[in-house]
Amino acid sequence: MIIVMKPNAKRESIEHILKLIKDNGLDTHISQGKEVTIIGVVGDKSKLMTQNLEIAEDVDKIVPVTESYKLANRKFHPEPSVVKVGNTSIGGNEFVIMSGPCAIESREQLLETAFAIKKAGATILRGGAYKPRTSPYSFQGLEEEGLKYMKEAREATGLAVVCEVTSLAAIETAVKYVDMLQIGARNMQNFYLLKEAGKTGLPVLLKRGLAATIDDWLNASEYIISEGNPNVVLCERGIRTFETATRNTLDISAVPVIKEKSHLPIIVDPSHATGVRSYVAPLSKCAVAAGADGLMIETHPNPAIALSDGPQSLTFSQFEQLCTELHPFVELMGKKF
Amino acid sequence: MIIVMKPNAKRESIEHILKLIKDNGLDTHISQGKEVTIIGVVGDKSKLMTQNLEIAEDVDKIVPVTESYKLANRKFHPEPSVVKVGNTSIGGNEFVIMSGPCAIESREQLLETAFAIKKAGATILRGGAYKPRTSPYSFQGLEEEGLKYMKEAREATGLAVVCEVTSLAAIETAVKYVDMLQIGARNMQNFYLLKEAGKTGLPVLLKRGLAATIDDWLNASEYIISEGNPNVVLCERGIRTFETATRNTLDISAVPVIKEKSHLPIIVDPSHATGVRSYVAPLSKCAVAAGADGLMIETHPNPAIALSDGPQSLTFSQFEQLCTELHPFVELMGKKF
Amino acid sequence: MIIVMKPNAKRESIEHILKLIKDNGLDTHISQGKEVTIIGVVGDKSKLMTQNLEIAEDVDKIVPVTESYKLANRKFHPEPSVVKVGNTSIGGNEFVIMSGPCAIESREQLLETAFAIKKAGATILRGGAYKPRTSPYSFQGLEEEGLKYMKEAREATGLAVVCEVTSLAAIETAVKYVDMLQIGARNMQNFYLLKEAGKTGLPVLLKRGLAATIDDWLNASEYIISEGNPNVVLCERGIRTFETATRNTLDISAVPVIKEKSHLPIIVDPSHATGVRSYVAPLSKCAVAAGADGLMIETHPNPAIALSDGPQSLTFSQFEQLCTELHPFVELMGKKF
Amino acid sequence: MIIVMKPNAKRESIEHILKLIKDNGLDTHISQGKEVTIIGVVGDKSKLMTQNLEIAEDVDKIVPVTESYKLANRKFHPEPSVVKVGNTSIGGNEFVIMSGPCAIESREQLLETAFAIKKAGATILRGGAYKPRTSPYSFQGLEEEGLKYMKEAREATGLAVVCEVTSLAAIETAVKYVDMLQIGARNMQNFYLLKEAGKTGLPVLLKRGLAATIDDWLNASEYIISEGNPNVVLCERGIRTFETATRNTLDISAVPVIKEKSHLPIIVDPSHATGVRSYVAPLSKCAVAAGADGLMIETHPNPAIALSDGPQSLTFSQFEQLCTELHPFVELMGKKF
Repeated sequence: MIIVMKPNAKRESIEHILKLIKDNGLDTHISQGKEVTIIGVVGDKSKLMTQNLEIAEDVDKIVPVTESYKLANRKFHPEPSVVKVGNTSIGGNEFVIMSGPCAIESREQLLETAFAIKKAGATILRGGAYKPRTSPYSFQGLEEEGLKYMKEAREATGLAVVCEVTSLAAIETAVKYVDMLQIGARNMQNFYLLKEAGKTGLPVLLKRGLAATIDDWLNASEYIISEGNPNVVLCERGIRTFETATRNTLDISAVPVIKEKSHLPIIVDPSHATGVRSYVAPLSKCAVAAGADGLMIETHPNPAIALSDGPQSLTFSQFEQLCTELHPFVELMGKKF
Repeated sequence: MIIVMKPNAKRESIEHILKLIKDNGLDTHISQGKEVTIIGVVGDKSKLMTQNLEIAEDVDKIVPVTESYKLANRKFHPEPSVVKVGNTSIGGNEFVIMSGPCAIESREQLLETAFAIKKAGATILRGGAYKPRTSPYSFQGLEEEGLKYMKEAREATGLAVVCEVTSLAAIETAVKYVDMLQIGARNMQNFYLLKEAGKTGLPVLLKRGLAATIDDWLNASEYIISEGNPNVVLCERGIRTFETATRNTLDISAVPVIKEKSHLPIIVDPSHATGVRSYVAPLSKCAVAAGADGLMIETHPNPAIALSDGPQSLTFSQFEQLCTELHPFVELMGKKF
Repeated sequence: MIIVMKPNAKRESIEHILKLIKDNGLDTHISQGKEVTIIGVVGDKSKLMTQNLEIAEDVDKIVPVTESYKLANRKFHPEPSVVKVGNTSIGGNEFVIMSGPCAIESREQLLETAFAIKKAGATILRGGAYKPRTSPYSFQGLEEEGLKYMKEAREATGLAVVCEVTSLAAIETAVKYVDMLQIGARNMQNFYLLKEAGKTGLPVLLKRGLAATIDDWLNASEYIISEGNPNVVLCERGIRTFETATRNTLDISAVPVIKEKSHLPIIVDPSHATGVRSYVAPLSKCAVAAGADGLMIETHPNPAIALSDGPQSLTFSQFEQLCTELHPFVELMGKKF
Repeated sequence: MIIVMKPNAKRESIEHILKLIKDNGLDTHISQGKEVTIIGVVGDKSKLMTQNLEIAEDVDKIVPVTESYKLANRKFHPEPSVVKVGNTSIGGNEFVIMSGPCAIESREQLLETAFAIKKAGATILRGGAYKPRTSPYSFQGLEEEGLKYMKEAREATGLAVVCEVTSLAAIETAVKYVDMLQIGARNMQNFYLLKEAGKTGLPVLLKRGLAATIDDWLNASEYIISEGNPNVVLCERGIRTFETATRNTLDISAVPVIKEKSHLPIIVDPSHATGVRSYVAPLSKCAVAAGADGLMIETHPNPAIALSDGPQSLTFSQFEQLCTELHPFVELMGKKF
């Protein structure tokens, strides 16, 4: 941590800071510049957590030097993590495709989808049973009934299954049926939910919040990991910007940035990022080329009548064609699916 | 709802849409323009919710005409709402100041604060017992113990008390102690929590999410109101933008926009919006002048050692001075406190 | 400037940096922390401008300590500047209202407006002769003809006049007719234009760019001032965010932030910030209360047929009423108009 | 154009609008819904440009149906455009790589770079002679001297050359030396400059503004094309968002969106989008996979001492390796270089 003093800071202001830091058991280094004095703090800065130095006399600003997330930080865990989900692994040289409907609507819809995506090459079935919808008048999900269909689809196809959870009650129910829990974008900073998901020990798919910086996102993952659960997979799904041609703005740079800052696997969801079906294929290829560990793509037997996010869902034949087109890109990246 | 067809849309594409709308029990009006055909849909568009017309052949785009929120919409409820909280009312000609520490740290800290803010003119005490913090290594709150101090402070001072809730468990505990529940920015689209807060019947202070449009925010309020609880107060607390001079960007225009679009009261939180103590006073005056119904301002007996958000907290004497300065602005707006 | 090394940086990497800094005539201070080494650079960092230390071996990041703008920086010029424009002054205890049409359409329109705004209390007439419009098919302005009307209006009313310039040719023409040049939001980083405007010596109204941070904006002002022209007035007019209820998002916090970081005067333009007439009055009051030195408000004899930005323009009677309502707020702030 | 009336709009308000539209020579279609009345306007809406219907009595909002750009619009020009620059073509099945230094620093630096990038497969040399820099104290470019080196490099290598222009004077000089003019992000809405660049007839590389929507960008291209110059190539280079891990946020979705909305070619600049050298390679592959027509990548003989943007520049060997790695991706997309 570095403390930058204001130009012409009074001698006693500087000494006050130095004393305060020492009283908390830390060391300091002073850099007396031409214009300003800088104080470097040496030691465990958490000892200073109860001192709000920003508002001490003559302090200009506090500059953090190290990231607040530790367990998710590549600096301290240089090897990339591989997260096992059912029979598949995310983060190694397997390229993982998750697919399925935004909302589970019926047993038939889900089973039909499960067989179709498996045939095309997907290894994880996604499907929403608890739907966080912007308006209370939109379809809110089948809840436990939907989870039962998920389990049935898993048994019928061998696919692993992942489902979003939005409350402790949903977590308690979901653990009985699914291989992986998803925390959605709107709950990325629902820290209570993160901790509860962490406690289950199940792998967690953590979607990026609409207004979350990459640092916020890694701090959110830290909530899960610090419960003793290192099985976190990140999912980039677009951030909110001024551009309205797509529903969100896919921040594809997040893939190499996460690879540099963290050891956690990262997948990309081009369906939610754009909200537009015709952009899903180009952005899927793009995610592969950027180095993602997998994709989450929405599919539906008949998108024209899907109860949620139909406009961005692929038909089975579109999905099959996309998987075919993705194969050589995945191979170029030294992975397979 | 308006359906805009692509230029040179095929006759059968247009007829397909018309038939589909009629089959769902709705009427249509066709506008045949020079370049494009437009289809207006007449009737209750929720009947079309299972039809994703965006992806029908030759459709260019769908333009919604009416807002999806109804109960929060001023068009259907022209009179401004007044929400009663303890002995105070928000949304009428009383100007309401909520104040207190970001985090409740001890009985002494809270009681001392309660008396100080009451003396300065505040009528509602705020204090966090469940703290959603970006990093899991930051102070997370005293939980029920903190709520007990809130109740004690209420009894000692007559102030109403408001506390953030972050889970169903927190709601179940909080209802025993507080007058008003707060849903924080990070949980604004935690729809499960919104519904549970709605069911309590207690007034709810709904903070705006960092990436929430005003429409998203009003839709979130709709989740609470549609549980039969119309006692919602909105709180603008800054949105996330590219500007970093302040922690968030206070969207002060939200005050007149909300006044036009909704009947719900709106207050402003300049402490969280800026994260900087010296900006709290000018932005408080600014919120009064923009037409807000109240303010939420963080105070602390000793901000230099506050466990949360100290740099943006006012001392008691700063708060008292601010209240004194606010008085003539509040009077100019035809209100009082 | 501070150089933060990566954890476990090699000894020779650190020595390479130290040598490089010394070779450029600067001193260093090393802070050897528990996790990382930090190098403080002492002296004129511009000597290091040709060294891209970010990409040197084992460097984690470079943290600037001082702002790159100097002439606009309050740290080095603690007294607030007052800029004289015609018979009025901006930045002192006069509160300045600039008003007029977005686009000058005719001699009659402009003169009628000039008399009306003067009567209501404005002291500066604004009017666009060179219009930067998003679409080439929108009205582009009367150019020199419009400037002649501006001069005539000045002579008839005694108002000072300000006009946007969008090219060197426009500057060369405008200096013959106006008291103040305006650089619009879209040209805020047209550095060539900034320098040319600076060279004229005329006061310059510098609007904030849609994507400009406050630091970018002050750096842009530095281009003008460094041409020997300290007569810069800043104008906050909204930034681009995800919110669409208003055309832009008025960043009202910019007022106290600028007052803290710079000595330059700042005014607010609620007309362009919102694009909606009914929000102009509340946001004008709000700007006064936040501490702005003035306002720029669009007026038009008949907004319903204005060639540019009619929907946000006030009629004369609306403007007059607003000025009446503003008076007590201005007085509360210790200013007058 | 569609006019949405407020609920309970008065009969005379509706008739006023209908009359006004008819008086301007256009037809209307009325859709009388359950809640609101909608008026469709049939005919050339530019006839209504002087009518600001938004502020007419009882009007809720105006919804445009067609885009304001015509010449750049794929709806009216379904075939993709191919733009010839020197001996290369952009937009066909050639994949075009532009490379070179951010700033031209010397004859040696430029010639050395030109030969190196040519060897690796680039066909266009970029180099800045007029540098728009955030701070006036940064290096501003060699101006005409730099352009002479560009011409020399072109003659020596056969590469086409492109250079940014920032003023009419720069355009007048540049046309003597270069094959293509570049309009930078900060000047994307410098409409005066766009028109002047259009008039030269030279191909124009139009970078996206930091706060420009895709619609703004296509409208900017319309300024060039409407001067009779259809040779426009778009360049996505990142937009400004809240994320700070990269200098800007590369909006990779812009590639498929532009391909759908416009016939103009689009290339991607990962160097400026991220500002970080290690992200350039993954994002280059990603741009190829998303369907871009080319790349602009910064290279420098010695990035550690580059006068501008060194931290994001590749060395020659890094660039050569990247080109080698790009080849199979480009082939997969059915293109070659």
